[in-house]
Amino acid sequence: MADDLTIQGSLSYNCLGIKRKINDRKRECKHIMKDVSELFGVRYPIIQGGMAWIANYHLASAVSNGGGLGLIAAGSADAAFVKGQIEKTRELTDKPFGVNVMLMNPHVDEIMRMLAEEKVAVVTTGAGNPGKYMSMLKDAGIRVCPVVASVALAIRLARGGADAIIAEGTEAGGHIGELTTMALIPQIADAVGIPVVAAGGIADGRGIAAAYMLGAKGVQVGTAFLVAEECQIAQAYKDMILKARDTDTVATGRSTGHPVRVLKNRMSKDVLSLEKQGIDPEEFENRMAGTLRAAVVDGDVVNGSVMSGQIAGMVKREETAAKIIEKMFREANDIYENRHTLFGAGRAI
Amino acid sequence: MADDLTIQGSLSYNCLGIKRKINDRKRECKHIMKDVSELFGVRYPIIQGGMAWIANYHLASAVSNGGGLGLIAAGSADAAFVKGQIEKTRELTDKPFGVNVMLMNPHVDEIMRMLAEEKVAVVTTGAGNPGKYMSMLKDAGIRVCPVVASVALAIRLARGGADAIIAEGTEAGGHIGELTTMALIPQIADAVGIPVVAAGGIADGRGIAAAYMLGAKGVQVGTAFLVAEECQIAQAYKDMILKARDTDTVATGRSTGHPVRVLKNRMSKDVLSLEKQGIDPEEFENRMAGTLRAAVVDGDVVNGSVMSGQIAGMVKREETAAKIIEKMFREANDIYENRHTLFGAGRAI
Repeated sequence: MADDLTIQGSLSYNCLGIKRKINDRKRECKHIMKDVSELFGVRYPIIQGGMAWIANYHLASAVSNGGGLGLIAAGSADAAFVKGQIEKTRELTDKPFGVNVMLMNPHVDEIMRMLAEEKVAVVTTGAGNPGKYMSMLKDAGIRVCPVVASVALAIRLARGGADAIIAEGTEAGGHIGELTTMALIPQIADAVGIPVVAAGGIADGRGIAAAYMLGAKGVQVGTAFLVAEECQIAQAYKDMILKARDTDTVATGRSTGHPVRVLKNRMSKDVLSLEKQGIDPEEFENRMAGTLRAAVVDGDVVNGSVMSGQIAGMVKREETAAKIIEKMFREANDIYENRHTLFGAGRAI
Repeated sequence: MADDLTIQGSLSYNCLGIKRKINDRKRECKHIMKDVSELFGVRYPIIQGGMAWIANYHLASAVSNGGGLGLIAAGSADAAFVKGQIEKTRELTDKPFGVNVMLMNPHVDEIMRMLAEEKVAVVTTGAGNPGKYMSMLKDAGIRVCPVVASVALAIRLARGGADAIIAEGTEAGGHIGELTTMALIPQIADAVGIPVVAAGGIADGRGIAAAYMLGAKGVQVGTAFLVAEECQIAQAYKDMILKARDTDTVATGRSTGHPVRVLKNRMSKDVLSLEKQGIDPEEFENRMAGTLRAAVVDGDVVNGSVMSGQIAGMVKREETAAKIIEKMFREANDIYENRHTLFGAGRAI
C-alpha cells in the first residue's frame, strides 16, 4: 500500500512531459506492480491484438479459453454488429475478453454506450484519445487500455484514467507509429505509473522475457495469432504469414502520415510507387479501401493488404490459440530459469 | 566440445536461407555459447558504435579503458589517418579496441591491409559484405564482426567466417535498415551459430537484459556514448541529445534507399520535403554532403545531420564512458537478480 502511494506520488512529477530524472524509488516499486493478468483476471498476461476484420468471436473466445485476453475488433462496424460478436463470444467462453475500438469509427459513440451496457472486461482503443468515454466505461467496471506510440500520449492517457498503456512499436502489423518496441517500452514505463503492455515484435517466449526486462507488465500479440487454428482468415493469408521471411514486410502510407505494415505483394509495390509519385492522402485512402477485406475474406494476397508484423518470419506453425499461448509462456519461463547461463558461462557481470 | 560440434552440425541446415524449424538442441547449446566479452578479451560485452566523425581515439580509448570495446571509425578517411588514430589510441590504453570500416570507403583496400599489419583486436564493418578481406584479417588474428540488418546477410557472413554478427535495428542512429532490434535479434540468433551482438535502442541495463533475452551475446551502444565526457563532438550536439524526447528522431533518405536516423531540425525538415518532391538519389547525396561534419565539428545543429538513435530520450547525463558502462551493467545485473519479481508478484508463469 505504501508502495502504491509512492507510485502515485511520483506520477505527477513524471507527468510534466519533460525529461524525467529516473526515480529509483519508483523503479523499485514497479518491480512489484501487478501485471495485467491480475488486472484482467486472466491466467497469462497476454492480450490478443484487436485486428480489424480478423479479430472476431472465434479468435477472441479461443484466446480467452486459452488463458489470454481475447479481443473482438470493432473495426468500422456498427454497435449492433459488435454486440452480436459479444453475444457469440459469451456462448463460447465464460472467461474475460475485450473489445478494441478504433476511435475513427463513425459509430464510436453508440459502440461505447453499448460496451458500457454489456460490461465487457476490457476496452482497448486505437487511433487517438478515448478521454471522452473514459468515465462512462470505468463506471461500468471496464478496464480501459489505449494503444499508444509515444510518451506524451501515454502520459496524457494515464492522467486521464487509463488502467494500462498498450505501447506499440513500429514492428507491429497494421497501423503503426515510428518508435520501436525496444525504444518505446522503457521510455513509457519511466513516464507513467500504470502497467505498460508491450506490443510489436513479440511471437515467442524470448520476446515476452525481453518485454518484461524493458519494464512491460504484459504483452500484446497479433501476428502469431493470425495462424491460430481458430482464426478465420483465408488460408492464403495464413500461408503467406507462415512462409514470410524477416525482410518481407513493408510500411505503406508513410507519405500520408498513416503508415500500415503489410507483407510485400503487388498491392504494396503499386501503392509505394503511387506514394513516390506524390499521391494525395484522400486518393490514397480510396486506393486502399477494401484491400484488407480482400486479403482476409477473399484470400486475395496479391491485391489485398496482408497486414503483418516484422516478426512473421518467426511464425512457422498453425496451432490452436491455447497451444500458442502456452508455448510462448513456457519458453519465457525457461529463459528466466536459465538466466545465469545466458550471461557468459555463469559469470556474474 | 560436443556442444560446439552440435552447433556446427546444425549450422549447415540453418544456412539454407529458407524457413528454419527451431532446433531445440541447438538452442540449448546457445545458452552456453560464450559471450563477446570473452571473444574480445574485454570485461563487459559491449561494443561502442563505430560512428563516423565521432568515434576517434579519445572515445575509443575511454571505452576500452572502461571495460568495453572501443572503436575507431574509419568513415571516409584514408589509411594513414586511421593508422594515426590507432597509434594515439595505443598511447592511451593497453586494452583491446577495434576499427569500424565502411566498405564504401574509397580507401578500403589499403585500410584493410594496414589493419592486418597493425593487428587491431577487432574489425567491424558496415555497408556490405567484407568477404574479400576476411581471410587476410583472420590470418592476422583479428576478430571480424560485420554489422547487418537482415537474416540472409547474417547467414552469408557467418558462413564466410565472421566471428560475431552485429545485428542492428532501425531504432539505431545514423545509417539504418528496416527491421527493429526486437524483430531482428531472435531471427538472426536462430539462423547463425556464432554470437549475435544487439545494436539499436540500447541505452541502459533494461536494454542489455532484453537483448540477452532475445538471444544476443553482447550489445553495441552508440547514442549513449555521444554524451560521454571523452566524446569530442560539439557541445551543441551533446545538448541536443540530452534534451531529446522519444519522438524527436526521423529517418531521412528512405526514398533513396539509404535511410539515416537523425534528430529533427531544419535540415531534416528541408530534406524530407525534397524527398517528397522526388529528389533524385545523386542530388540527394550532394545535398547531404558535409552535414554530419557540420553537426559534429562545427556544432551546427540546425543545418547539420545530428545523427541519433530513438533511445536519445533516455540519455540524460554527461558522464565518463567508464561510468556509463558500469551503470548500464550494474542495472542489467540488478534486473536479472530481481527477475522473479518482474513477473507479477513472484508468481511462476
